[in-house]
Amino acid sequence: MGALYNQVADQLQALIADGVYRTGDRLPGVRALSRQFGVSISTVLQAHQTLEARGFLQARERSGYFVRLPARDVPEPTMPEHRTRPLPVSAREMTLDLCADEQKRMVPLATAIPHPDYLPVRQIQQSTIWAARRGLETLDYAFPGKESFRRQIAQRMATLGVPVSPDDVLVTNGAQEAIILALRAVTQAGDIVAVESPSFPGILQALEVVGLRVIEIPTHPSEGMSLEGLQLALEQWPLKACVVVPNHSNPMGARMSDERKQQLVSMLAAANVPLIEDDIYGDLYHSGERPRPAKAFDRSDNVIFCSSFSKTVSPGLRLGWMIPGRHMASARQHKYFVNLATSTIPQLAMAHFLEQGGYDRYLRQARQHYREGIERLRAAVARSFPEGTAVSRPQGGFVLWVQMPAGVSGTGLYRRARQEGINVAPGLMFSTTNKFENCLRLNGGNPWTERIEKAVIRLGALAHELRDQGA
Amino acid sequence: MGALYNQVADQLQALIADGVYRTGDRLPGVRALSRQFGVSISTVLQAHQTLEARGFLQARERSGYFVRLPARDVPEPTMPEHRTRPLPVSAREMTLDLCADEQKRMVPLATAIPHPDYLPVRQIQQSTIWAARRGLETLDYAFPGKESFRRQIAQRMATLGVPVSPDDVLVTNGAQEAIILALRAVTQAGDIVAVESPSFPGILQALEVVGLRVIEIPTHPSEGMSLEGLQLALEQWPLKACVVVPNHSNPMGARMSDERKQQLVSMLAAANVPLIEDDIYGDLYHSGERPRPAKAFDRSDNVIFCSSFSKTVSPGLRLGWMIPGRHMASARQHKYFVNLATSTIPQLAMAHFLEQGGYDRYLRQARQHYREGIERLRAAVARSFPEGTAVSRPQGGFVLWVQMPAGVSGTGLYRRARQEGINVAPGLMFSTTNKFENCLRLNGGNPWTERIEKAVIRLGALAHELRDQGA
Repeated sequence: MGALYNQVADQLQALIADGVYRTGDRLPGVRALSRQFGVSISTVLQAHQTLEARGFLQARERSGYFVRLPARDVPEPTMPEHRTRPLPVSAREMTLDLCADEQKRMVPLATAIPHPDYLPVRQIQQSTIWAARRGLETLDYAFPGKESFRRQIAQRMATLGVPVSPDDVLVTNGAQEAIILALRAVTQAGDIVAVESPSFPGILQALEVVGLRVIEIPTHPSEGMSLEGLQLALEQWPLKACVVVPNHSNPMGARMSDERKQQLVSMLAAANVPLIEDDIYGDLYHSGERPRPAKAFDRSDNVIFCSSFSKTVSPGLRLGWMIPGRHMASARQHKYFVNLATSTIPQLAMAHFLEQGGYDRYLRQARQHYREGIERLRAAVARSFPEGTAVSRPQGGFVLWVQMPAGVSGTGLYRRARQEGINVAPGLMFSTTNKFENCLRLNGGNPWTERIEKAVIRLGALAHELRDQGA
Repeated sequence: MGALYNQVADQLQALIADGVYRTGDRLPGVRALSRQFGVSISTVLQAHQTLEARGFLQARERSGYFVRLPARDVPEPTMPEHRTRPLPVSAREMTLDLCADEQKRMVPLATAIPHPDYLPVRQIQQSTIWAARRGLETLDYAFPGKESFRRQIAQRMATLGVPVSPDDVLVTNGAQEAIILALRAVTQAGDIVAVESPSFPGILQALEVVGLRVIEIPTHPSEGMSLEGLQLALEQWPLKACVVVPNHSNPMGARMSDERKQQLVSMLAAANVPLIEDDIYGDLYHSGERPRPAKAFDRSDNVIFCSSFSKTVSPGLRLGWMIPGRHMASARQHKYFVNLATSTIPQLAMAHFLEQGGYDRYLRQARQHYREGIERLRAAVARSFPEGTAVSRPQGGFVLWVQMPAGVSGTGLYRRARQEGINVAPGLMFSTTNKFENCLRLNGGNPWTERIEKAVIRLGALAHELRDQGA
């Protein structure tokens, strides 16, 4: 559904797309639109601003809003045609560097970390104080996880179509650890695992930790992993697992349809290859209903579900969980071996926050923020970057994938931008090969400020320079 | 130093050992001893109770205290003569089982977890509430660790003879994770690593996580790892690391002298084999001065220091740290790869607790508790177990190592005891071979209650039964 003004903006945009309003047309007045849509004046004004951010309207002083097509409308990135041999995963210092303290003063377009302004700071503070007062309970090992927290997780999983008991939940230090535990449960060092391409760097790092080889499966910017590509890989290689982010994958924001999730689950079940699902962005859908995880279509206990609150409530909590199913004994043992348990106080605090209903109230706002942030960022990139640039259309989350014209180096842009205090994530971080060298990931999870806007314009100018130098 | 009454008890015990007082002698009256030692009446009474716990005095109603030798004084366990080939480390479900929820109702003699009665519950609560009020600061990633916490750690390290800056400290989810990160920094899968024997099971598990092979070095119950044994291993095998707990090793409570620590550090530096030091029990010395870590004797940046607050403040915090030295870049990267960062709130809370001086005040009490707990437990085992039983004399920490006569199965005793609701740790957990099959580790970190005493007596009776069945 989304906010009312977004619905109005969507309808106006559809009218523009259908040619009802054309470039240069003046939109009907505020009062007329208010009557037309049966909404308040202020809703119309918000819809105007939204469409302006998307690049479809231009305000002229004292004259009203005029239709234009976005400076240059940009297509979605193409899905690369690539088939590779399994490769060992190698360390990428760059990822570490993105999060180093000294980068915190830069314009934060690199990391996929939610902006602090959007976090439920006061609520978490109240829940933490509540947790601290539990006294003794806060000091005990919480292995395999605090029962109160696991119960809340089980309740949420049920609403996603995954009915589990608290005993089916294993608590982890974030989703990254959950993915590693899942990989350890189902693979041996040297095994081959399929991942999306481009892939979240943390997944490539998880594979490296466990000593696995990777097959990258081409991934469509809005439909997700190519099932044909996966089928080919299943036929050619003895895959031992497949790691997928079916909902709003990082870096492209793709979402697999329910039908494709079902196909993915059946294909892997038939091949007896476990699916490791990372649903960390699932709660951050931009419109419509909460998308189901692939686990909801799992009839043969072949999907290991992993998630965390790092992208929603706070990365500092380090609070994730997994539903290992028949691999519970192995996952539990590995968790115990790597660090025994997850810190108790954050679990108690989060259980309290969930129980009080605060999480869902907060999510409604956060989703709206990220949707708007992504729209503004996408429009700004479309206006500023060289012709031939393509940009993803994320259906959730807060990162944007920018594919520059062939020959424009994302790594070159990253280096130049850092010299000017702007931090971006270069495409080569998202693969073990250099096939995304002309790409960037940008963080759209920031409040839109002049500083951010200027930084995007500057990135566009640098991309122009790099293109011209290459030509 | 220890409490005044302990000093009085020590001196009286020395007089008994020297034959000044013999078995059956009545000790001088309370007033006389008060004058003799220049201490208060209540101190004398506490000294009496202490000696009674140790088994050297017997109270007779209205007649005073009479000297006796402990029912049977027991020797320290012998150091096994064993040389093995490197072995792959295999999973031990038993360890997990010891910590499972359903075991919490048993008499807790198995786990090396501090008893909640001895933990600084109120202080941690206050510091956690203080931390929760930091607001935004609590929600951010704390990689490589909160500066305030790392600063407190650097200050403590300096008092141990290890002057480091906050930037030299990497924060981890407990010492277990620190050891794994250290192993990852200096080894490759399949490498051979030397450990103490018997060894803390967590160290064997850490080796398993990283895919290493182990050489177990004979370890003396009070002097620690055999340097001759280590020398032999260095000559025979291409060791890539050596993991040692020089202060109050688990399970025996051995403490290497400063001289032997120096030798250990030089030997390994000369062989270019990194020493991974686990100092988790260092703060829990029973008397005298805080023993130095091996790292204090490290002149060539060859020692990676690891520790945590799990055995002192609380296992539930999951708060450890390491000083990786020249391996910092690698350790940082691995930390980031396995779970990005350690939870923020516990770091802020602990930094506050340390800064307020609460930790040192609390430690003074905790050390006294554990010293007394170990003494009582040792005396009870000596009285209850079959002849031929040997018991460690820990110089710190709160676990006791019991070596039963050859042929009495620790695993058998463990199984029988569990049927009666008593949980102990069988010797086979402490090695990759079965050379400690006749051993047990008992937790002396509990307040001494009738329930505990009866459990120890019952364990002794079961050990008698097992011996008789075997004979």
